[in-house]
Amino acid sequence: MSDVTLDEIVSLCKRRGFIYQGSEIYGGLSGTWDYGPLGVALKRNVMNLWWKMFVEDREDMFGIDAAILMNQKVWQASGHVDTFTDPMVECQHCKSRFRVDHLVDNDEYENETKEYFTRSLAFVDSLPAKYEEYSQEQVAQIGDIFGHAQTPATYPNQTTKELREYLSSNQEQAKKYLGNFPRLYLMRSAKKCEKCGSIEWGDTRTFNMMFETKVGPFADTVTIKPPRTIEAGEEIALGGPTGWWIKPSENTVYLRPETAQGIFTNFKNVVDSLHPGLPFGLAQQGKAFRNEVSPRDFVFRSREFEQMEIEYFVHSDRWEEAFEQWRLAVHEWTKALGLPEEKVHELEAPETDRAHYSKRTIDFEFDFPHGRDELLGLAYRTDFDLMNIQNATGKSMEYQPKDGGPAFVPHVIEPSFGVERAIMAALTSAYTEDEVNGEKRTYLKLPTHLAPVKVAVFPLLKNKPELVAKAREVYAMLKKEFGAVMWDDNGNIGKRYRRQDEIGTPHCVTIDFQTLEDQTVTVRNRDTTEQTRIKIADLIAGLD
Amino acid sequence: MSDVTLDEIVSLCKRRGFIYQGSEIYGGLSGTWDYGPLGVALKRNVMNLWWKMFVEDREDMFGIDAAILMNQKVWQASGHVDTFTDPMVECQHCKSRFRVDHLVDNDEYENETKEYFTRSLAFVDSLPAKYEEYSQEQVAQIGDIFGHAQTPATYPNQTTKELREYLSSNQEQAKKYLGNFPRLYLMRSAKKCEKCGSIEWGDTRTFNMMFETKVGPFADTVTIKPPRTIEAGEEIALGGPTGWWIKPSENTVYLRPETAQGIFTNFKNVVDSLHPGLPFGLAQQGKAFRNEVSPRDFVFRSREFEQMEIEYFVHSDRWEEAFEQWRLAVHEWTKALGLPEEKVHELEAPETDRAHYSKRTIDFEFDFPHGRDELLGLAYRTDFDLMNIQNATGKSMEYQPKDGGPAFVPHVIEPSFGVERAIMAALTSAYTEDEVNGEKRTYLKLPTHLAPVKVAVFPLLKNKPELVAKAREVYAMLKKEFGAVMWDDNGNIGKRYRRQDEIGTPHCVTIDFQTLEDQTVTVRNRDTTEQTRIKIADLIAGLD
Repeated sequence: MSDVTLDEIVSLCKRRGFIYQGSEIYGGLSGTWDYGPLGVALKRNVMNLWWKMFVEDREDMFGIDAAILMNQKVWQASGHVDTFTDPMVECQHCKSRFRVDHLVDNDEYENETKEYFTRSLAFVDSLPAKYEEYSQEQVAQIGDIFGHAQTPATYPNQTTKELREYLSSNQEQAKKYLGNFPRLYLMRSAKKCEKCGSIEWGDTRTFNMMFETKVGPFADTVTIKPPRTIEAGEEIALGGPTGWWIKPSENTVYLRPETAQGIFTNFKNVVDSLHPGLPFGLAQQGKAFRNEVSPRDFVFRSREFEQMEIEYFVHSDRWEEAFEQWRLAVHEWTKALGLPEEKVHELEAPETDRAHYSKRTIDFEFDFPHGRDELLGLAYRTDFDLMNIQNATGKSMEYQPKDGGPAFVPHVIEPSFGVERAIMAALTSAYTEDEVNGEKRTYLKLPTHLAPVKVAVFPLLKNKPELVAKAREVYAMLKKEFGAVMWDDNGNIGKRYRRQDEIGTPHCVTIDFQTLEDQTVTVRNRDTTEQTRIKIADLIAGLD
Repeated sequence: MSDVTLDEIVSLCKRRGFIYQGSEIYGGLSGTWDYGPLGVALKRNVMNLWWKMFVEDREDMFGIDAAILMNQKVWQASGHVDTFTDPMVECQHCKSRFRVDHLVDNDEYENETKEYFTRSLAFVDSLPAKYEEYSQEQVAQIGDIFGHAQTPATYPNQTTKELREYLSSNQEQAKKYLGNFPRLYLMRSAKKCEKCGSIEWGDTRTFNMMFETKVGPFADTVTIKPPRTIEAGEEIALGGPTGWWIKPSENTVYLRPETAQGIFTNFKNVVDSLHPGLPFGLAQQGKAFRNEVSPRDFVFRSREFEQMEIEYFVHSDRWEEAFEQWRLAVHEWTKALGLPEEKVHELEAPETDRAHYSKRTIDFEFDFPHGRDELLGLAYRTDFDLMNIQNATGKSMEYQPKDGGPAFVPHVIEPSFGVERAIMAALTSAYTEDEVNGEKRTYLKLPTHLAPVKVAVFPLLKNKPELVAKAREVYAMLKKEFGAVMWDDNGNIGKRYRRQDEIGTPHCVTIDFQTLEDQTVTVRNRDTTEQTRIKIADLIAGLD
């Protein structure tokens, strides 16, 4: 745990113009955040540092900037359409909605799910070959198994064989179609609604975390096939519990839930236009979107966020070496953010927790104010993504080595960073309280290369034109050199120091009457609060 | 018109890794584009240049970075929900869909629309006071006037008075509810479908250019109220011509169609946390989205694009002065992009063409390969946006001057830039063909600060270890200084020059046998093709 509380960070961010609630003036939009002037500067410093370390300073890395809107086939092939989902249930009494996995003991639930699949498979095996020969009870039970809501689109015209194949061949996907199992499970275990205490649960429904929109004119077409008659003039809500009526439009696209697929889909383009030697990596920064059920912990889990992802392509024989190099590079990154080593933890994901395609994953965790939580991830994804694209498009994803050796589909190491989490970790690490002359002081001990303002310039008094004129000179000189320079002539010098401390400005330069005589200024250090007199001519070198 | 064709630019961009079609490997997604390694570098150079010129180098400018997803109230107050629309019609025969304004003579249509409103108003005035007393014909005609599709949600329970008010008080908005007028107009003028030649037109429908999505669990709820019975099991498409059944969900949000509103909504936040003096400006870079019916002309008109917008807040007495300063600043910008002055044109928008709130607008146009078209805009928006927010939220948008003078709502000058258009204009201006030693040569005469690669380094021969080692030394030195340095050891030197010319690299440095003797290298200039020998020790200064 960290010493600073989340409230203290949120409050500082709002008060000083780092980060505001998104759409705040209209009552906000949960899970979105706007960056104010100092926040933009900090964010740019973080993102530019990453780009410099991982793209510009390296020979083996290239940039990519793919569109946020992508063809829906991208997310079908990647598995996101089918599996980037959570089953949800609705309380019959108060209509509150919950993610099933937030209500249950997940180990027990997982076991029961497996048993349920086994039982269901046995039941399907016992069915007659043709749908027409099913008894009414059998039809009802199929509904319970596959869900009255979420049976594959062609149901009830599927044959027993198809149902069987469905259940047995693709259990990952079949979990979408748990039917009433979650409901029955909750009812049986008498799980109470967390809002009203009721134990009556409604149908289960799958909730995909991807935001969906439609492209093109007349794009908002959905197809329904209601199981009962809807009378003329009847007002009825589709979606929610009745969502099974809706077939997505062909014009549906998703806001990307990750930037990674924008890299994989351009792998061939880059190889064809730049002919890079292997290993090489592609890096991307950009927005991604997830319709989180419960955004929380300030910018830590939001619905719109900024990713920085790398896909590093290697021969399958060389993945361990590359993985280790990136593991070390990640530590360089956390150091550059100013995170203390003892607050950064490597969590090696055990096989059971890893995505099925990943052969090794390390979650890098950090001691955030809200607890230890994921800062970034490093995963060996094998050739899973490129093979998915090759299979879905029929286009070869093979790489032809320049030495004429046999072509192969490269394997991938993926270091995946979140901008907001980097910012939160940097602010958490920088936030410091001490006492100066008996008064409590708050300051941000940010590394200089991250500080939104590099240096602040103060004329001692704002009503002495000669002081102000001299201070403007110094300001202009520093502004030209450092860009991010702030002018402050408001209140006494002590107050100005406190204001700069709070936003992490490493140096304050004061122009006083002595300056007019000997061309020296007072430079005050943020961390030590020490003041030294420096000649204006030596100032730039002295601050760097 | 420009000398280079659009095809030549598109082809170069694809071949050399500047810009690819979005989702290309899956058949593309119209109106989206992905940036490859060189494109990312160019785009970053353009965006960072803008940020430096208009934020970092100035004292009166501050950055903002607002979320793409915003509360729907933002777009209701700004007028986008109601007026960012185009009426569309469907051919009854071939089902092709067209924007009405693409089919008609707009002046004539506009006049007829006005007459139609007058006639409709007269008709409404002739109605009985209560809906119950309307005749069947009157009900039908109301449907024709307001559209069977797009009557306000409460229709048919509106009173005559409400209908009247609606038609007379808000004609801009009422145009959304043209009902069957466009259809009747097209039928009467025997306008043929451009696809099949039919003259049978279907209902008109309004098409909003904002992309819509839903936030939160079970968010995809829509409410329908069908005017006829839908039988159980009937498959029916909603939206399109039947879109009138759909009431948007409360969870609907829009992908921002412009970045400007993200600035206005944060005006008060910035004033409260930074207390800037007036005039000051807020600047934002970021993605915006418009569901264009016909994306076209490469990246010029796409569905996802990157804006750079400034809202500059001034006292209403001072707008002319600020407008003129920004007009000059815009010319500095086009110069920095390398655009020749004679291809940049100021088009003063006449009052009839301006948005009703704007008192002055200049469209800056450029001679693109596809013709003269808008590059960027400069508008005086008065206090329209801040007043909209003040009225919608009830929160004061007044600015309190530091000198204690009376508070007021600032007026706004808005310079609005598009990244893609800046890139297209820069590429168009840079694209040059000449003849070198009797051979045609293509090169990009980009300003050095925009070039994706600053300098390329070549060992004369790649199979001579001593040459390669020396060249690596030089490469490392330059890479440390300039970042964007490319290594090329492939093919003869002439071919390497051509490759670098084509991507706009200002300098190529060749390490040859003489280098090993006297520590000099050959530096070749992109524009003049001149070669000079320079000492390695003087190289960095020589290239800068």
